[in-house]
Amino acid sequence: MPATSVGVFKITTRGPGDVSGLMAMIVSGAIEPTSILAILGKTEGNGGVNDFTREYAVAALCTALAPQLVLSAHEVEQRIAFVMSGGTEGVLSPHITVFTRQEIDRPAAGLSGKRLSIGMAHTSDFLPEELGRSAQITETAKAVKAAMADAGISDPADVHFVQIKCPLLTSDRVAAANARGNKTATTSAYSSMAYSRGASALGVAVALGEIASDIGDDDVLRRYDLFSKVASTSSGIELMHNVVIVLGNSASSASEFEIGHAVMGDAIDAAAVMAALTSVGLGADPQPGRELVNIFAKAEASPDGSVRGFRHTMLEDTDISSTRHARAAVGGLIAGLAGTGAIYVSGGAEHQGPAGGGPVAVIARLAY
Amino acid sequence: MPATSVGVFKITTRGPGDVSGLMAMIVSGAIEPTSILAILGKTEGNGGVNDFTREYAVAALCTALAPQLVLSAHEVEQRIAFVMSGGTEGVLSPHITVFTRQEIDRPAAGLSGKRLSIGMAHTSDFLPEELGRSAQITETAKAVKAAMADAGISDPADVHFVQIKCPLLTSDRVAAANARGNKTATTSAYSSMAYSRGASALGVAVALGEIASDIGDDDVLRRYDLFSKVASTSSGIELMHNVVIVLGNSASSASEFEIGHAVMGDAIDAAAVMAALTSVGLGADPQPGRELVNIFAKAEASPDGSVRGFRHTMLEDTDISSTRHARAAVGGLIAGLAGTGAIYVSGGAEHQGPAGGGPVAVIARLAY
Amino acid sequence: MPATSVGVFKITTRGPGDVSGLMAMIVSGAIEPTSILAILGKTEGNGGVNDFTREYAVAALCTALAPQLVLSAHEVEQRIAFVMSGGTEGVLSPHITVFTRQEIDRPAAGLSGKRLSIGMAHTSDFLPEELGRSAQITETAKAVKAAMADAGISDPADVHFVQIKCPLLTSDRVAAANARGNKTATTSAYSSMAYSRGASALGVAVALGEIASDIGDDDVLRRYDLFSKVASTSSGIELMHNVVIVLGNSASSASEFEIGHAVMGDAIDAAAVMAALTSVGLGADPQPGRELVNIFAKAEASPDGSVRGFRHTMLEDTDISSTRHARAAVGGLIAGLAGTGAIYVSGGAEHQGPAGGGPVAVIARLAY
Amino acid sequence: MPATSVGVFKITTRGPGDVSGLMAMIVSGAIEPTSILAILGKTEGNGGVNDFTREYAVAALCTALAPQLVLSAHEVEQRIAFVMSGGTEGVLSPHITVFTRQEIDRPAAGLSGKRLSIGMAHTSDFLPEELGRSAQITETAKAVKAAMADAGISDPADVHFVQIKCPLLTSDRVAAANARGNKTATTSAYSSMAYSRGASALGVAVALGEIASDIGDDDVLRRYDLFSKVASTSSGIELMHNVVIVLGNSASSASEFEIGHAVMGDAIDAAAVMAALTSVGLGADPQPGRELVNIFAKAEASPDGSVRGFRHTMLEDTDISSTRHARAAVGGLIAGLAGTGAIYVSGGAEHQGPAGGGPVAVIARLAY
Repeated sequence: MPATSVGVFKITTRGPGDVSGLMAMIVSGAIEPTSILAILGKTEGNGGVNDFTREYAVAALCTALAPQLVLSAHEVEQRIAFVMSGGTEGVLSPHITVFTRQEIDRPAAGLSGKRLSIGMAHTSDFLPEELGRSAQITETAKAVKAAMADAGISDPADVHFVQIKCPLLTSDRVAAANARGNKTATTSAYSSMAYSRGASALGVAVALGEIASDIGDDDVLRRYDLFSKVASTSSGIELMHNVVIVLGNSASSASEFEIGHAVMGDAIDAAAVMAALTSVGLGADPQPGRELVNIFAKAEASPDGSVRGFRHTMLEDTDISSTRHARAAVGGLIAGLAGTGAIYVSGGAEHQGPAGGGPVAVIARLAY
Repeated sequence: MPATSVGVFKITTRGPGDVSGLMAMIVSGAIEPTSILAILGKTEGNGGVNDFTREYAVAALCTALAPQLVLSAHEVEQRIAFVMSGGTEGVLSPHITVFTRQEIDRPAAGLSGKRLSIGMAHTSDFLPEELGRSAQITETAKAVKAAMADAGISDPADVHFVQIKCPLLTSDRVAAANARGNKTATTSAYSSMAYSRGASALGVAVALGEIASDIGDDDVLRRYDLFSKVASTSSGIELMHNVVIVLGNSASSASEFEIGHAVMGDAIDAAAVMAALTSVGLGADPQPGRELVNIFAKAEASPDGSVRGFRHTMLEDTDISSTRHARAAVGGLIAGLAGTGAIYVSGGAEHQGPAGGGPVAVIARLAY
Repeated sequence: MPATSVGVFKITTRGPGDVSGLMAMIVSGAIEPTSILAILGKTEGNGGVNDFTREYAVAALCTALAPQLVLSAHEVEQRIAFVMSGGTEGVLSPHITVFTRQEIDRPAAGLSGKRLSIGMAHTSDFLPEELGRSAQITETAKAVKAAMADAGISDPADVHFVQIKCPLLTSDRVAAANARGNKTATTSAYSSMAYSRGASALGVAVALGEIASDIGDDDVLRRYDLFSKVASTSSGIELMHNVVIVLGNSASSASEFEIGHAVMGDAIDAAAVMAALTSVGLGADPQPGRELVNIFAKAEASPDGSVRGFRHTMLEDTDISSTRHARAAVGGLIAGLAGTGAIYVSGGAEHQGPAGGGPVAVIARLAY
Repeated sequence: MPATSVGVFKITTRGPGDVSGLMAMIVSGAIEPTSILAILGKTEGNGGVNDFTREYAVAALCTALAPQLVLSAHEVEQRIAFVMSGGTEGVLSPHITVFTRQEIDRPAAGLSGKRLSIGMAHTSDFLPEELGRSAQITETAKAVKAAMADAGISDPADVHFVQIKCPLLTSDRVAAANARGNKTATTSAYSSMAYSRGASALGVAVALGEIASDIGDDDVLRRYDLFSKVASTSSGIELMHNVVIVLGNSASSASEFEIGHAVMGDAIDAAAVMAALTSVGLGADPQPGRELVNIFAKAEASPDGSVRGFRHTMLEDTDISSTRHARAAVGGLIAGLAGTGAIYVSGGAEHQGPAGGGPVAVIARLAY
């Protein structure tokens, strides 16, 4: 029976333009460039509208991979899913995680159980006035199902992390919508990032049956009781469509890796982080031979202005955006429990986990 | 035998000028205003040079307490030690901790062991050119010993937290030194906060015998192997002398409270936080009847640019000062382990714990 | 014939809590405290939601003036109109401008023409859900007319500057509206400042006949072709009603001062600044004996993202709010033309002048 | 007699990675790629240590120009001098200025007088411990003289702008110096930018005879009476040597352009800006046929904390670096007087013009 072999490589970077780590692994043969399916990265910008470290990192990777793949840089960007999450506040450390996938004739002996699998899909381009609204929700849901199929996953319970890259509004895009006589969900570029992340997450929740499918425009950024436990969405200026990456466990995978997840109920939910670690045999009492590869989590300032009854000041701070505050704090907690700051903690968890909380997924490498 | 009764009250605030919580406790009789010795607060400014929330909070408290103490606001500020640490990044929640001390004829029955004690002292005013240098170290060490005596503590091992409020340089103060023909340790107001905090912490280390007393000007902010495990120093624009508050356990105290501490080796040292909690009967396996009152910790970006081998970006960030990053991250970790964001995490841990780490002290209330 | 004598005093401050300059002028007799009608200040906070320098400055002034006026601090705040505009970016210099008004039996000989007059009024408290909407517009318009009458001004052409202090939304206030089943104009505290400023400015435009009175909720922050040429509105967390101060010239005034204004068409409209200076006998060819007292201007990032055809980046900056950018730039221009940074340039010019521009008013002292 | 033809092209950009404007001019034949000598740009980052928009812009330009020049991207970076100044605060607009130079057999008829000329040179790589010290000063002076010769300029009075690109310190570089047993001028990355800029500017002043050559390490960032009237230095993380570009007027140039300059005495020196404009036939009373190409200026917060006697708050602001404040304010003034925000205003004017002021140079295109 044919199977897929999925690889996961965490590589630190010395700057957003640094591709030397990946290139070294390609030269050494550790990574076969044609097998690269997706690259998720933490880059050291502000994570906001004017965070150019994301597109710089993508440009640098595409330029470096182009000769390896005998493609133009632009074609590389179309072939591989690049998701760069800006913001390495506090102890968070810039790095990329490279996901590879190859068809193999038969799995290595000794493998048992479902293993890490990855699938991808994307929507068509959105109009600016569709962002943050039901059009984005519906199209995203379709793409999630397509990505599940691509990953060889049929049971939503086997989906542990759905990473989405989604657009944002700029002055130009708002003006284009206005020129068509349409209003956008917001006129603020910064606010549009939240709308786009929120609608995309609701699309995941619809696809996985976590919520009903009759979501309206007004529910976005309002009905925070509607959310996905595994969605992670990140908005960037460089695209106008949604790219969907599904990570889960599949019987068709012959990977060395396993993924699990939990949901943080709030920004200080240490128990959930421990539960996510434990779900893949790590945590307080780790199984022998298992080691942490990476943690993927979303963080946000709780919209009600408090955490377990105590007021926080993230939403009233005009100097530092609340996404930066939240990444720093949640990143500090997870890094403390995981023992490393080289983790993927992304900001803006609208409809990703409960209000003020967010999903946390862990990938472990198994000994055999 | 006469004894002292020390009280500790944690009160949340709705803003830097909010004194309503303290006033309510005075009106209800829970706090006797004449017994207030010190107030440590977390205020929601940027914690930097132009953080006026600190002086605003002090002004509001002095104005409110003046009629209670039949003193002028200025006299209240002389009588009570106010230490406001700016910066409630991430999940940190603005609050004040009020320390009271009263002489009592004899302790309540059933008390055993050393209990929480508090003592205070201060130096004379420094010249701007003395800040961050040996003059500040030596005078601080003298004041620490005086504060220990005031607390009824003779063994340095019983000292668990030494909070110091120290000055910083402004353009005016640098100019004044220059006019005398003297150079200051730095001409940058922001940098001077680090120098002043560092020299003050070295003064604590000298007083407690943690390091030898032959510290030179050049050791400040250079010899990071020299540090105190219990010093917490905070610089502010509103004073030119050091105020020293010693917190420890003393046989002469009839307090309901106990204090303990540990030292974080780096910014993600979850084990040290757990050790500090355990040292007062809290932590993973808490003793019955004990409850957390507050945690006092210092945080900083490790000066070598990395945490456990992974690069952090706090020191290269021109948008957000590293002290804000560090408070957010360490605050997130401690809040997660303690279950509350209403904790005192202060930035700038130069010579307070090892480089990149810092002291963490915990006060618990005992059932009896 | 009775007349009013209006005085204007510009006093620099060394910090938001510094009242020493005003106190010195009261002690010297230069300012009669009972004659103080309004104090407009520039304080050195971020000018955003969490700018506590505004309320700190007001608290300090009220505490200092209370014994002078034989009132409580709270009563002083009710009696005098305090408008603190946060943000002294770039060359802007923190200061207060004190306006006094006294009835006199007859004006000094030699006075001719209309002279500076001041009038005040205020609305009732608004509900959070009324901010940024027609309720705020209508009530503000009524208050402007009342303030004109108080200033002895009947012709709208004699009104040169209308300063309004208006509320903003906080998490608590949004929650209160939601609890009543009502939605607020925005859920973001920062965005709410713009809504409140915009609606207040439209109220001025309605009162002065600059625009028709049939303004709807949807016009606020959308129809930027609707604006007042003399409105200056500033939002702050410390109140829930609008305070209106009208500055103009009146035949009933026996003041030494004169006021004029122009409208900046964009953020680099040097000609408008010169026209405003010239309107009171200053500028390139000043009339003898006249001197500049202060300039009052509003600044904003043009909402279309460009200035005279060149893209600006103020609206896409997640690190610095656009109001800070705009104050710095416009403050730099006006300071260069006026020769001083001690001027009142306030951010957020929604519906105050054309989109991207704003009103600029000048007060000159006459020799006789 | 052979001569050089120097071209100057100002091209707006839509982002740091946008090369479309330059490519279009190459395609149209307006710019011959082999003639490009230097590109000065304003990019929209924070202008600080972690401003990656500078290196991103250079990477994008090198990648785009490589096929045009039949070179690798790396070789392009060696061949053309790229100086990217980060920070387009306020009304400043991102753009690049492309300087070309070609040898021609004989100038066009009708040319008279000295015309715009450009010359380049660079130093060897510096050690981290040499930055901000006399080694950097001395080597820079030599490079300035070499660049003058390259420009065909012998009289220092014909030099109107000397742009230098210089290194900064990072944690790694400080550690490398420490490992050699040497201390760097500062351990702060941000402060090191000022040291490097300052020493480089003093090198220009030495080369042009503006100051004596006996400058010591201690004079850097201390003796602000020592400065160059034409130096503009910009520090960036991407290099370890100084690149020097001299702009002046030369009889050997057959350019359509002319350059002039003046020195701003402080950040609000409108008269100096007008004088610089007038020096090339622009300003209040422009000569027919002349048009503005670009303005090159340096801005800084005056180190004494005041501008014309009024306190500024730029140096005490922990939220926004003083270089950002200064660029915004001076940019606002110059843009107002020039009528455009597409100008090159760069921050950090240490030893570039008098303390608090800075050089301002103007390039005009002549009709013939």
